[in-house]
Amino acid sequence: MPEFFNVLPPDDARELLLSHLTAVLPSEIIPTQDALGRVTAVRIHSPQPLPTFRRSTMDGYAVKAADTYGASGSLPAFLQVVGEVPMGQAANIALQSGQAAIVHTGGMIPETADAVVPVEHTQKIAGQSSLPFEIEVMKAVAVGQNVLQIGEDVRLDAEILPAGHWLRPQDLGGLLAVGITKVAVARRPRVAILATGDEVVAPAQSPGPGQIRDINSFTTAGMVTRAGGIPVLGGIVPDNFQALQTAAQEALANADMLVMSAGSSVSVRDMTVGVIEGLGEPGVLLHGVATRPGKPTIAGVVGGKPVIGLPGNPVSAMVQFDMLGVPAIYRLQGVATMPRRGLVRARLSQNIASESGREDYISARLEDDGAGGLTAVPVFGKSNLIYTLVNADGLIKVPLNKAGLLAGEQIEIQLFGGHFW
Amino acid sequence: MPEFFNVLPPDDARELLLSHLTAVLPSEIIPTQDALGRVTAVRIHSPQPLPTFRRSTMDGYAVKAADTYGASGSLPAFLQVVGEVPMGQAANIALQSGQAAIVHTGGMIPETADAVVPVEHTQKIAGQSSLPFEIEVMKAVAVGQNVLQIGEDVRLDAEILPAGHWLRPQDLGGLLAVGITKVAVARRPRVAILATGDEVVAPAQSPGPGQIRDINSFTTAGMVTRAGGIPVLGGIVPDNFQALQTAAQEALANADMLVMSAGSSVSVRDMTVGVIEGLGEPGVLLHGVATRPGKPTIAGVVGGKPVIGLPGNPVSAMVQFDMLGVPAIYRLQGVATMPRRGLVRARLSQNIASESGREDYISARLEDDGAGGLTAVPVFGKSNLIYTLVNADGLIKVPLNKAGLLAGEQIEIQLFGGHFW
Repeated sequence: MPEFFNVLPPDDARELLLSHLTAVLPSEIIPTQDALGRVTAVRIHSPQPLPTFRRSTMDGYAVKAADTYGASGSLPAFLQVVGEVPMGQAANIALQSGQAAIVHTGGMIPETADAVVPVEHTQKIAGQSSLPFEIEVMKAVAVGQNVLQIGEDVRLDAEILPAGHWLRPQDLGGLLAVGITKVAVARRPRVAILATGDEVVAPAQSPGPGQIRDINSFTTAGMVTRAGGIPVLGGIVPDNFQALQTAAQEALANADMLVMSAGSSVSVRDMTVGVIEGLGEPGVLLHGVATRPGKPTIAGVVGGKPVIGLPGNPVSAMVQFDMLGVPAIYRLQGVATMPRRGLVRARLSQNIASESGREDYISARLEDDGAGGLTAVPVFGKSNLIYTLVNADGLIKVPLNKAGLLAGEQIEIQLFGGHFW
Repeated sequence: MPEFFNVLPPDDARELLLSHLTAVLPSEIIPTQDALGRVTAVRIHSPQPLPTFRRSTMDGYAVKAADTYGASGSLPAFLQVVGEVPMGQAANIALQSGQAAIVHTGGMIPETADAVVPVEHTQKIAGQSSLPFEIEVMKAVAVGQNVLQIGEDVRLDAEILPAGHWLRPQDLGGLLAVGITKVAVARRPRVAILATGDEVVAPAQSPGPGQIRDINSFTTAGMVTRAGGIPVLGGIVPDNFQALQTAAQEALANADMLVMSAGSSVSVRDMTVGVIEGLGEPGVLLHGVATRPGKPTIAGVVGGKPVIGLPGNPVSAMVQFDMLGVPAIYRLQGVATMPRRGLVRARLSQNIASESGREDYISARLEDDGAGGLTAVPVFGKSNLIYTLVNADGLIKVPLNKAGLLAGEQIEIQLFGGHFW
């Protein structure tokens, strides 16, 4: 089998993989207040306008705006305050021309009023202790001024959220405000994770000579969790085609996606390709991504389920899973447009060499430059070195078409800790 | 009581509040693989070097580098391959000068070797089917080349993570790689949330005339969760000093932090100040933050626990909680340096007016500009309108010292969905 007959640029690789994926079914209905970070399964329309009644945006007096026209500090309008609208109650006060009612911020406006005069633009005429009393209005208000209109926040039956929307705190608020206390969301995809390698032992074991602890299972699991998936750890499988084939089949049967973290030798990669091909159709889609680190990543789809073979090097594995696996998990939740990555701008501390035709990712630490800006300091190291990522705040991306970056250049760093990783 | 005797710029307000806070105690010890998003309680040192043995970074041959000096395509060096180091096993092969051993990526290097020649720089001499066999080396290697040295990733006893570090997937990997399967982390702070207001009803209720549903409890709870806290919903308290005082006392006794989402009228704000003062020392620290939306935010500390009185308007409440409450939750977990916000750069679609001396936050939607960049479209609306946040991808910040932003300006948007909200 040719080793890299299908090495794609990262954007093409991702698009190819995503084009085969749709939301896992069935969706589920859960309480809105528990839906943070979940993804809407259907488009949602508002069952009511918001607000349902005209509300004051100020502490002041509900008035007929026409009664204030021309009012100024030197020539105030005089109004008689005939009542008060209590918070949380109907505004059952019928205002006549020349009359006003006390209203509080957020309170209801009487039907006969059309504006609110803020209390700081009025003056109570001295010597009056109870209703009715008289006020001077020192500034005119226009019709509708300081009033929140019915449906001003959202109209009845408006589409308030599309399907495939990742729910944030404000979205829960928007849903609850219109009484939507349950919401249909995508099921969280189950992502099976297998580690392979005769040299790999569980982290709790003491590795013997030539052995190392499995960490890719756990870094991958963390990224799965952050993307909204449920990691299902399948343990360590020996470097043996039949063993891996059997383990992969069983894992995929009980999951929506499979990730195999293989070793990095050529024979192990070929084995992963063979195992994916053996799982079903359409099988392997790509044999590599034109990036460093991480070129030898294998991605395929079996019966609508993504299957990814990651390189064994922990840095390569994370960079590649971020590039292909995390978007796949979002897509399995029905997310149509991938969330944006958070960036920060910083000045590069030193030259970075790269190769045109390949996307390079370099770990970087951010330091204050003492002038209100940031300096990005590359954390160089072989892609086996997990601490190049532990000691970093984000990744520098050198685009496909650039042959490197120069010291002093203003660049954007992909910040860890956002939607992706 | 003077209404705003202590209105601070946002950075000063946050620093003042944080200066009174330390990590909640006691910390707890949990499995490392469950520690994603938790915060280290102590500095962690490595109990071993990583790796513990010299590893090959290539598929190839372990050699004595000196045997390859001067080798080239036209004048190759001839070496005798005398064995193979199996993955996951000790490299018990004693190489003599002129000898080599097959090694795989990640495999152990024999003690008598000091470099690895990649397989693609060698050629097997034809007609040999079993060990020992002869190879031609077409390119010299230097001592140490293609070899990962003991401790190259992390040295024995090196500080691998500081206290107060927010754990990411790669950090779990770094800890597990050196056998740290349990980790001491800060307890997740319990954040009590009370809503006040005679007009406020629970979301599942049908609001009567003049009534609205409580949403601030739930938007706040979502932000608490994303920051690593545990929201404890205390429900809705009537606009009554004694009722609020009692509810606040009980809530604070069982929590590490208290958030009260009050109404927005002056009387309600004054009541919140009185309640915080009545809870204990030092009490109220600030009576407002120089921002829009959200100026009338009250923040204090009682017995080391932060107490925050948010404005009733949902947008103000979220912006202010992001500014003061979220950093407080991180600090209660011992986070020393606040996580950075993810930003994206975009060109502003229209002018934004502001006032110097005040930090303004405007919701913005991001649109592709058709030329590979982004356009930020402000979502204007009164601070009562939760849908100005639902329909936005992030916030535009107009700094204290600017009187606005101009259409066409390249600006940075604080992206929703990161460390903060």
